Amino acid sequence: MLKIAILGVGTVGSSVVQILKDNSEVIKARAGVEIVPVLGVVNNLAKKRDVDIPLTDDVNLALNDESIDLIVELMGGVEKPYEIVKTALAKGKAVVTANKALLAYHRYELEEIAGNVPFEFEASVAGGIPIINALREGLSANHILSIKGIINGTCNFILTKMINEGASFADVLKEAQELGYAEADPTFDVGGYDAAHKLLILASIAYGIDAKPEDILIEGIENITTCDIDFAKEFNYSIKLLGIAKKRGKLVELRVHPVLIPNKEMIAKVDGVMNGISVVGDKVGETMYYGAGAGGNATASAVIANIIDIARRGKGSPMLGFNKPLESGLTLAEKNDIETNYYIRLKVEDKTGVLASVASILSKCSISIEKILQKPLESGFSNLLLATHKSKESDIIKALGEIEKLDFIQEKPAMIRIEQ
Amino acid sequence: MLKIAILGVGTVGSSVVQILKDNSEVIKARAGVEIVPVLGVVNNLAKKRDVDIPLTDDVNLALNDESIDLIVELMGGVEKPYEIVKTALAKGKAVVTANKALLAYHRYELEEIAGNVPFEFEASVAGGIPIINALREGLSANHILSIKGIINGTCNFILTKMINEGASFADVLKEAQELGYAEADPTFDVGGYDAAHKLLILASIAYGIDAKPEDILIEGIENITTCDIDFAKEFNYSIKLLGIAKKRGKLVELRVHPVLIPNKEMIAKVDGVMNGISVVGDKVGETMYYGAGAGGNATASAVIANIIDIARRGKGSPMLGFNKPLESGLTLAEKNDIETNYYIRLKVEDKTGVLASVASILSKCSISIEKILQKPLESGFSNLLLATHKSKESDIIKALGEIEKLDFIQEKPAMIRIEQ
Repeated sequence: MLKIAILGVGTVGSSVVQILKDNSEVIKARAGVEIVPVLGVVNNLAKKRDVDIPLTDDVNLALNDESIDLIVELMGGVEKPYEIVKTALAKGKAVVTANKALLAYHRYELEEIAGNVPFEFEASVAGGIPIINALREGLSANHILSIKGIINGTCNFILTKMINEGASFADVLKEAQELGYAEADPTFDVGGYDAAHKLLILASIAYGIDAKPEDILIEGIENITTCDIDFAKEFNYSIKLLGIAKKRGKLVELRVHPVLIPNKEMIAKVDGVMNGISVVGDKVGETMYYGAGAGGNATASAVIANIIDIARRGKGSPMLGFNKPLESGLTLAEKNDIETNYYIRLKVEDKTGVLASVASILSKCSISIEKILQKPLESGFSNLLLATHKSKESDIIKALGEIEKLDFIQEKPAMIRIEQ
Repeated sequence: MLKIAILGVGTVGSSVVQILKDNSEVIKARAGVEIVPVLGVVNNLAKKRDVDIPLTDDVNLALNDESIDLIVELMGGVEKPYEIVKTALAKGKAVVTANKALLAYHRYELEEIAGNVPFEFEASVAGGIPIINALREGLSANHILSIKGIINGTCNFILTKMINEGASFADVLKEAQELGYAEADPTFDVGGYDAAHKLLILASIAYGIDAKPEDILIEGIENITTCDIDFAKEFNYSIKLLGIAKKRGKLVELRVHPVLIPNKEMIAKVDGVMNGISVVGDKVGETMYYGAGAGGNATASAVIANIIDIARRGKGSPMLGFNKPLESGLTLAEKNDIETNYYIRLKVEDKTGVLASVASILSKCSISIEKILQKPLESGFSNLLLATHKSKESDIIKALGEIEKLDFIQEKPAMIRIEQ
């Protein structure tokens, strides 16, 4: 029998308890032993919870109980769970967590403390999709060339609605909040920070890169307009918030930002609240993983998969090389060290020479134009929408700075990267 | 060091040797030990092979060499590899195979003989996509409700071309043969047999069902016409050859046949030679896995993933419950025990009362019509195309039998199942 304690008995924690009960027979067969939740730890004992295990508000009851083999950490936050997980691992208790913020900041220290004690976190990225398992085991023969993930369901819901219904960001965000797909303060999701945490976890597995959210480029979807959507539709692009990791020699690019992506790409077809992660291996080519990225049952499915896996490995020595990153000796590329195609949105006054001035600046900055679309606005103004051929981010930033100074430019130029 | 012998050094075998060399550094880090191919066994030593290991035509040199830890079986065929794999396992050598026909017929005996000796076959289904790993590990907390797989690239290439270009089956098949995507004798692929072998492997993992290809419904794509494609387009369906496994109480439906499937389904978006497998778990909901289903490197990627996994587990006891099916106590449903929606194609003479007669037979057989499209053919004839509401397969067969006898029916009625 494997006894577990669950720290944090909210949506996911309750689902873990319920699934261990509902599917106990198959889980026991797969795990080789019975898995029994014996204790739940909560902040507020007064709050009514529909869950069938003893509850306490004293985490030490879980940590000091020697009969408890495994701790499931679902508390959220960073520093408090960090201390608790450290203690649990030091006491030799296996830990399974879904806490992406904790992992984005402290994964390397925790893995070192863990040593041979199992420390797993499949549920921390993309909910029920077994993407960490795929990277660690399914693709273990490959150098990972790139990872591109739709790993925030809130953003994907909003962008899908904006594209399908031509609605504005503000309107769809309001709808998402009413449906419970977005928080009252949506910054963490729509600003790209949640996706960044998850990207850092995937990148640490693939590349052994110990970057923090502060170290990487993070842009959200707040500034995407219906005009950008029009351009995307005209040229058969979709707009997605992607977490991108790309190997370039001994450098790794890590970035989270909206992208225009050709509709024919499989990842462009992942719509609504669903998540999808495209991984390119040097030998296997592209594989993609799709499913529910959130929700109690989907996330609990991943938590329990980790528990079963730990039970299967038994008390013996851990598997060789299992928690090693797929690559080593790589370093993080500079934030602005990007070469890609760019989409540029300019609100301009309608007058002679506008296109000539813009084109001249772009040309001077070594940027060549691939696509162009001009959309009239209220009388006297237009949106001038451009896509470039492959360019350097530094050149684009320089060009946009100069363009902004032109007298016919009506608002700060906007830019979205294109992934092909 | 883990020493391996490779039986069958064709496209996949050569890729295995090459990848073990190209990616030796990451593979050693992941496996915990060096993996060295020490011997290749081939039928015809005279044939020139661009591979950097000693070759022999005597399989006993591999089987009797006690320093060889693991056999990679890539020979093809059924009975000869069966004897060889049995011998290898009995001698305690781990076996990794990509041979789907061998597994479709003998998996259960071989697993029994293997006992605690590792016997793995990730590469046997969907090439480089780690679908077996996902079922065994990623989704281990779930009852698997259904598996729907596009698991034959040849069929998917042909159907995609027929849909995108309106070309006929015969023309696209010829093109696929010229491109090397279809064999000179394409029956094994286009007849659905290859997909059936793979489906049986997935079903054995998910449901513990020991069915043979002869026991299940297998229909190919040979009879799909451009007229069916027109109907599909009109009503926003795609046409795919699917391997389907569905749990229904204690029964499991297993079948391979073409389906009309709504374009909005993620699996409908898997085009060309690519493979995709949708798995619905009772807790995680739908997850989908996408990638290259064939090709030397993609298939070798999966073979090596198995080898690395075996190396990691070391010489200790195998993981508890690892090779257990996800479910047990299930039995195979009767071949015709299907309830779904159906598409029916009737070539009819244009005369009064045609629709009335057809509708009357359908109604008598408890079949209700959902969609209808009539397409004029050469003068005096039409294609009458129908989609039904949910119906029983036995009712459909009965109705089509009666309809065939009507004097205005010009050819045997055709039927394609609809998956929603």
